Amino acid sequence: MTLPTLTDIRSAHERIKPFIHRTPVLKSQQLNRMFGCELFFKCENFQKVGAFKFRGATNAVLSLSGEEKERGVVTHSSGNHAAALALAARMNKVKAYIVMPETAPVVKKDAVAGYGAAISFCKPTLQAREEAADEIIGKTGATLIHPYDNFNVICGQGTAALELLEDTENIDVIVAPVGGGGLMSGTSTAARGIDPAIKIIGAEPLNANDAWKSFTTGILTPSVNPLTVADGLLTSLSELTFSVIRNNVDDIFTVTEESIIECMLLVWERMKIIIEPSSATVLAAVKEHPSFFRGRRAGLIISGGNVDFRKLPF
Amino acid sequence: MTLPTLTDIRSAHERIKPFIHRTPVLKSQQLNRMFGCELFFKCENFQKVGAFKFRGATNAVLSLSGEEKERGVVTHSSGNHAAALALAARMNKVKAYIVMPETAPVVKKDAVAGYGAAISFCKPTLQAREEAADEIIGKTGATLIHPYDNFNVICGQGTAALELLEDTENIDVIVAPVGGGGLMSGTSTAARGIDPAIKIIGAEPLNANDAWKSFTTGILTPSVNPLTVADGLLTSLSELTFSVIRNNVDDIFTVTEESIIECMLLVWERMKIIIEPSSATVLAAVKEHPSFFRGRRAGLIISGGNVDFRKLPF
Repeated sequence: MTLPTLTDIRSAHERIKPFIHRTPVLKSQQLNRMFGCELFFKCENFQKVGAFKFRGATNAVLSLSGEEKERGVVTHSSGNHAAALALAARMNKVKAYIVMPETAPVVKKDAVAGYGAAISFCKPTLQAREEAADEIIGKTGATLIHPYDNFNVICGQGTAALELLEDTENIDVIVAPVGGGGLMSGTSTAARGIDPAIKIIGAEPLNANDAWKSFTTGILTPSVNPLTVADGLLTSLSELTFSVIRNNVDDIFTVTEESIIECMLLVWERMKIIIEPSSATVLAAVKEHPSFFRGRRAGLIISGGNVDFRKLPF
Repeated sequence: MTLPTLTDIRSAHERIKPFIHRTPVLKSQQLNRMFGCELFFKCENFQKVGAFKFRGATNAVLSLSGEEKERGVVTHSSGNHAAALALAARMNKVKAYIVMPETAPVVKKDAVAGYGAAISFCKPTLQAREEAADEIIGKTGATLIHPYDNFNVICGQGTAALELLEDTENIDVIVAPVGGGGLMSGTSTAARGIDPAIKIIGAEPLNANDAWKSFTTGILTPSVNPLTVADGLLTSLSELTFSVIRNNVDDIFTVTEESIIECMLLVWERMKIIIEPSSATVLAAVKEHPSFFRGRRAGLIISGGNVDFRKLPF
């Protein structure tokens, strides 16, 4: 198993630069006062398709051989990765096949269809998804681009932290949400490579705390039917992301549903930007660990801003 | 009646610069494609207190004499102007007296109280508000800072357009919401002074179309009990703002409630920024007048981002 390095992330950045937005790093004096530390929000909610996922998907598509590009890409996802892969593929004239559960919200189906991907529907189980993807691969020879258990995807995701650390100075701590661990793997590889003194913290919902369990016990322990408002963080670490995280991360802070919702609302109200619940976990980690963060300069990766405004948790 | 000039707005800008945020001008490729024009959003939702009102309030406070500063400022408002005046006063060590209707939402009372202003409550009628303010003036000698019928407030509001035109090139049209007309007066004075060829458009809810009526008939015609989701635009023009608008503005486009809500949601979804309904009127004007805007470069003043997330119109 080859683990990514800072060099791989820098290469990914050169590769994807012409396609991605360089998202801004925002600050809020009010939140700094409230939490007694200096916060730097790397705003991937402003990324294309509204999430950091576009970085990894773009890097994966651009890393294909010419022949692989001809055959297309496939993934099974109902979330941001599906939209990200569909757009990254379209921008590079590559065919994208997306397997989605029949139960996916219409708005997500429309988004993926709008990017020109071919959608196949399946029953909402992991087995059905994988079978449907395998069938497409058998027929088309398309390359599976897993949402996080993929070297190139991880390298792409790490470019957000790279930009954050280029655009700020003297960061003491960097915090990213942990779901399947793709973002955390890329973030921690970038940060550890750039400055070994930076503390690297994962933020995870207590209700989906497989990464915390795996990190604490040293044994990869997937979540079983987790339930959290942070719907981007329901997935569990893979062998690959677990290995990277175990190597690089200093700690994983779990956060309550109440904190996630409170912090999401805080950012909406005070910063006037839309972040999704998964992104609010990083501020919730700050809120729940005041003594750790006090006086520090913390970079927070805001993972995305795709929210169903008709189903708000507040 | 002295009307403000570009020179007055430039002076206001120099005066308030150390206190305000220079807010960003954002673009959205998706919205440009959707509307067939190039849009430049001047984001006063990121201004202090979440609205352009902080510009005018700050200019008014800074324009007081030393003796006036000692006696304090007073206004009657339950909206963004109250919070803006309270903060502008506190930052300049001036006492602020705010008259609010008893019926104002708790969140607004808390915001104003949080900025250290002295709040007086009154019955929710204009007469009761004015009497309460007069009583405070009688007792304290405080200076009334009207939300829009005030020369210095208008000059402050105009600084948003000044920055927008400094930070962009070749703007063909500038659009601002019209409520009491303070923002529109400042915006139009700045734009007309900088480039007489710029088209200047007011955006007003059809349900509170006093400015459109007054502009069309040439006779100042206040609204009677208007009802619109754009709660910042319920007020009517004053003699002063009507005079400025009549001199400078090319047209006033009225917009429906449906368009306002649709465009507010569009900006939230596509741009991932929070704008209040009043701000959405400017995009609604673009949507309802496609042939006017097609192919043009339009600067849109986004007036603010203060929204009650528990009472969303969608």
